Amino acid sequence: MHITIIGSGNVATHLAAALKNAGHKIIQVYSPNQHNAAILAYHVGAKPVSDLSNIDGAAADLFIISVKDDVITDICRELSVYQKLIVHTSGATPMLPGDKRGVFYPLQTFSKTKELDFSQVPLCIEGSDEQVTAMLEQLAYTLSRNVYRVNSSQRKILHLAAVFACNFPNALYAIAQGLLAEHQLDFNLLRPLILETAEKVQQSLPAEVQTGPAVRRDQKTMNDHMQLLSPEPVLQDIYQILSQRIIKMDNALKGDE
Amino acid sequence: MHITIIGSGNVATHLAAALKNAGHKIIQVYSPNQHNAAILAYHVGAKPVSDLSNIDGAAADLFIISVKDDVITDICRELSVYQKLIVHTSGATPMLPGDKRGVFYPLQTFSKTKELDFSQVPLCIEGSDEQVTAMLEQLAYTLSRNVYRVNSSQRKILHLAAVFACNFPNALYAIAQGLLAEHQLDFNLLRPLILETAEKVQQSLPAEVQTGPAVRRDQKTMNDHMQLLSPEPVLQDIYQILSQRIIKMDNALKGDE
Repeated sequence: MHITIIGSGNVATHLAAALKNAGHKIIQVYSPNQHNAAILAYHVGAKPVSDLSNIDGAAADLFIISVKDDVITDICRELSVYQKLIVHTSGATPMLPGDKRGVFYPLQTFSKTKELDFSQVPLCIEGSDEQVTAMLEQLAYTLSRNVYRVNSSQRKILHLAAVFACNFPNALYAIAQGLLAEHQLDFNLLRPLILETAEKVQQSLPAEVQTGPAVRRDQKTMNDHMQLLSPEPVLQDIYQILSQRIIKMDNALKGDE
Repeated sequence: MHITIIGSGNVATHLAAALKNAGHKIIQVYSPNQHNAAILAYHVGAKPVSDLSNIDGAAADLFIISVKDDVITDICRELSVYQKLIVHTSGATPMLPGDKRGVFYPLQTFSKTKELDFSQVPLCIEGSDEQVTAMLEQLAYTLSRNVYRVNSSQRKILHLAAVFACNFPNALYAIAQGLLAEHQLDFNLLRPLILETAEKVQQSLPAEVQTGPAVRRDQKTMNDHMQLLSPEPVLQDIYQILSQRIIKMDNALKGDE
């Protein structure tokens, strides 16, 4: 397909590269920041555009809008004059109203500085009608094995769940790293544990592989930990609320058996 | 070395197997549960024992106690008559007092049903004197590349940090899985995201790769998420306290720049 990418952030960068690798033609890359547009356009063999009025509306079959959520609607309105298929990549934004609209939401965390295997990225697809959905699905399968039809209300839940599965665990890693740093301990001590914890749930359900003092009801260790955290009451609150959650989850699991 | 393993849980199982693979001789495996002692003993070519009075005190150079924290002291007292080196594997328990005592703490999460590369496991070593420490260090290097000398007060912090780096992220995975299940969405959608989040911090520091609505100060998305969580006030509390932590962490990071 002939595709124009609107945006030059992490998602736009990885998606544009994956599309190019899959044999699609990236026509233009738009970013209001000329420098960013130029960098990404260069990497994917496209023309950079930093003014929406310079978009070549005839050349593209598809516009992929990958920008901050609060400007998606405005950009879509400007592009609608070309009467082409327009999708966005946002987990938190409903599909835009109108014909020839869709969503192409890659459920992954992207960094510009870290390569990743796009063929494993779950792609969540929605289209304004069956023809659009089927076409986006076909496009998605050229990039990834993991393609799902997900409607706007399901996608909202997915996006929320991703915060719990990605953003919050990372915040906890940061807390752990901070505790170590305060005591001159190397974060490398924890890195294998972090990776193994994530690898464990690739086959199992998390509730079934829960470990640690809370699931063991090891009150003495929990008391010791609360004591160690006493200089940071917020960390005590986090410790307590998550420990209680683990106990409740484990009770529910055992009740189910 | 000639080693007797006290315990048959996850840590005892993985450690005994790694010791055997490294060429050490496991003499006996003790568990009060005869069946569990027999299974592990069979796997590592040792004799099972389910009564401490049947321990062969002369045959072992080293006793490794890998049991619930609250029985470590009692078992150590019973074994002390043999005057051999005695270590435990607990992150939360100080080194036992006396000569020829030590700690051999593998900082990893183990499941009996999942293999893992023991050569990557960080081993935290402490000894009652320099000779013991050096000997345990040498033993540790036969199993793993990642060997650290860690004293009892540092080990307490490590163990606490491991709760934040492993047990709590797993609890958040479980919350995410629960949200998906309630909406007939497959947990496979989130598995690549979970793995990538853990892989990202293998090279970077977590605070530097934080993503999501909180670090973007995307208040609209956060409000939407709080609304979606309204049936479960505990999840709202968790959402709020972790989002606030992310914002505070990001402010500190930017303040440092």
